[in-house]
Amino acid sequence: MKIKPDIENQRLTRKIQGLDESLRIKEIDVVEERPLTLFLNSQEIVTMMTINDYPKYLAIGYLLNQNMIKKEDELTGVDFDDDTSTIIVRTKRKTNFENKLKKKTLTSGCAQGTVFGDVMESFNNIIFDDSYKLKLEWIYQLSKKINLTPSLYLKAGAIHGCVLCKKNVPIIYMEDVGRHNAIDKIAGYMFLNKISSNDKIFYTTGRLTSEMVIKSVQMKIPIIISRSGFTAWGVELAKQANLTLIGRAKGKKFIALSGEHRIEKK
Amino acid sequence: MKIKPDIENQRLTRKIQGLDESLRIKEIDVVEERPLTLFLNSQEIVTMMTINDYPKYLAIGYLLNQNMIKKEDELTGVDFDDDTSTIIVRTKRKTNFENKLKKKTLTSGCAQGTVFGDVMESFNNIIFDDSYKLKLEWIYQLSKKINLTPSLYLKAGAIHGCVLCKKNVPIIYMEDVGRHNAIDKIAGYMFLNKISSNDKIFYTTGRLTSEMVIKSVQMKIPIIISRSGFTAWGVELAKQANLTLIGRAKGKKFIALSGEHRIEKK
Repeated sequence: MKIKPDIENQRLTRKIQGLDESLRIKEIDVVEERPLTLFLNSQEIVTMMTINDYPKYLAIGYLLNQNMIKKEDELTGVDFDDDTSTIIVRTKRKTNFENKLKKKTLTSGCAQGTVFGDVMESFNNIIFDDSYKLKLEWIYQLSKKINLTPSLYLKAGAIHGCVLCKKNVPIIYMEDVGRHNAIDKIAGYMFLNKISSNDKIFYTTGRLTSEMVIKSVQMKIPIIISRSGFTAWGVELAKQANLTLIGRAKGKKFIALSGEHRIEKK
Repeated sequence: MKIKPDIENQRLTRKIQGLDESLRIKEIDVVEERPLTLFLNSQEIVTMMTINDYPKYLAIGYLLNQNMIKKEDELTGVDFDDDTSTIIVRTKRKTNFENKLKKKTLTSGCAQGTVFGDVMESFNNIIFDDSYKLKLEWIYQLSKKINLTPSLYLKAGAIHGCVLCKKNVPIIYMEDVGRHNAIDKIAGYMFLNKISSNDKIFYTTGRLTSEMVIKSVQMKIPIIISRSGFTAWGVELAKQANLTLIGRAKGKKFIALSGEHRIEKK
């Protein structure tokens, strides 16, 4: 794996003491969430709650997945300031999202909360071809490898994971309090490291909601695998984009509700 | 229970056919998510994704928890239109949130996505007294009763539940694709039915993030129980408000990280 959870990083978890069911003192590891305020050039965009392990990947991935910057955009600077917990992304192209920021849709589930109208427009223009296939065994091989990787989830719980995979190999494993952050951090990493998307698979611990499908299509990743369940609109959007949507992946079990034709037995 | 999940409601789930791990055709129940656009008087506030079983409770609860309407406010009308999936809440008092809507914080986890600055201000003014106590046995009695109640979660998965309880009795059990919606629907129900809050307990299936604690404090409910885990800032805010925060409640196990003094052995 190029990136995996850093369970030794003292900034990401904290030991907190409480009482257990026998009213005995017990100490557990708890995950941190910190505010991070994002500026695009001179404009304040949003304040996010994040474990803040990769502010630059998060900021760039967020802006990409919100269509606020484009893959072609030239970044002239990305400055993170730890004291004020702000990050400024600077682009050569002038940007202004005054109006865009007014009109938003709250998405469901463990969602980053907003999808903008023009994101849906670009969504409607993307339909995956069938070129990329998925071997049946990869599904549980990936689940097993990911579940056995030491993670903040195993250490402290209450965190989501999202993993970019190629074939049966996990490549980039990001975690965050909000699943949307984990996805955006992967998007930012892919952008900065020019990683191709159409031969990749997304593994997520979270539910397969409309918002998850929209982000995956934005990122041009044709296959999503989740240990969790589906929403009906998530399935509809996946079918529209010819995205392979595999949920309830536990042990060797799973169910695919969209793009099943990509799954090959051998 | 005054309200429990309506698993027979054909609008809330859909049967979808797919392939299982043996590549055999399998049909499962999948939960619906629908957009609902909320207007406060003449102003469009937000579009939410919801199962939309209780649009009026959701709309009113959302506005209350965002401090856009106050408990004292007189509602002159709440009109839901199914065809356009819009709901309009009308108040006697003039309202205008142009500026408020520009400035938001994305909260973590299965969060509704936004908390406004003035919500934090009012949060800082609320500190619960110790009058309301919690019997140890209530914790697992509530978990058991709630987990055994037929629900959309048991039927279709991929949905969150939030239950308002008094002592060891679940009263209002709401589910939604976004946990924040389930909470807001309870807030709307409590407002319209004038239900007291300071003698109640919140049970949630979701994580105990900052946003969950903020909403519970907004609603003046002094105790939260979750089968899921904590975030550090959620615990900090709970301690600040003297809120009892109980997580990882499974079977007879749990851990309390804030307000443990409310728990009584017998």
